[in-house]
Amino acid sequence: MKPLNTGNWLAQVHFNEQGLIPVIAQDMTSKEILMMAWMNQASLQETVELGQAVYWSRSRGRRWHKGEESGHFQNIKEILLDCDGDTILLIVEQVGGIACHTGAPNCFFQPLVKDSDDLHWQNRFGEKN
Amino acid sequence: MKPLNTGNWLAQVHFNEQGLIPVIAQDMTSKEILMMAWMNQASLQETVELGQAVYWSRSRGRRWHKGEESGHFQNIKEILLDCDGDTILLIVEQVGGIACHTGAPNCFFQPLVKDSDDLHWQNRFGEKN
Repeated sequence: MKPLNTGNWLAQVHFNEQGLIPVIAQDMTSKEILMMAWMNQASLQETVELGQAVYWSRSRGRRWHKGEESGHFQNIKEILLDCDGDTILLIVEQVGGIACHTGAPNCFFQPLVKDSDDLHWQNRFGEKN
Repeated sequence: MKPLNTGNWLAQVHFNEQGLIPVIAQDMTSKEILMMAWMNQASLQETVELGQAVYWSRSRGRRWHKGEESGHFQNIKEILLDCDGDTILLIVEQVGGIACHTGAPNCFFQPLVKDSDDLHWQNRFGEKN
């Protein structure tokens, strides 16, 4: 594969003091927010070259090719940078329809709900946290 | 206003070492991602009580009631916590239809595009960065 121009476009991405940038993945069809994760410069570059989401796992301290274990890869349709250059949005095709490591379609399955005066995070899978 | 139960639901939110949590705002109608910003515990609590998004501005180092200057408030329809408890998704009604301080409807208006072998962030408003 011919190496892509890495000059200017990468320089406009603002990584934080840990060298990371927050990345939001959105499903191209349903427009659901699938997950939020982090990339460093190398994983962002690899995402662009590979056409699949490659994150930086903070918990494991290593490169994380999303789907490497589950097969739930994210095929990149579009990569967008925000106004400040410090957040990235990926528009993806979510292979298998499952983005979350819990097996949920996406990671945001806990709405804050109010029963009388009690607030709690409800689990849309049925359990009350 | 009667104070809400702040016991359990807040304890399940994982703020980072700076006491902040990333928050994604999504438009309830168009499902566009409007912006990504940060909250601390106080601004999250205020968001819930007020029913409008209140962030923590890292650049200004202060509470930021979104829309306080522009009038572009975000009325909260739903608040969701992710699987790990370390990211929040707000489903909002974006007053005025403008979320970005640049005047754009949302902050993610710069897709990464490739012309021959040159990658660059295109500005959907017309300028090439």
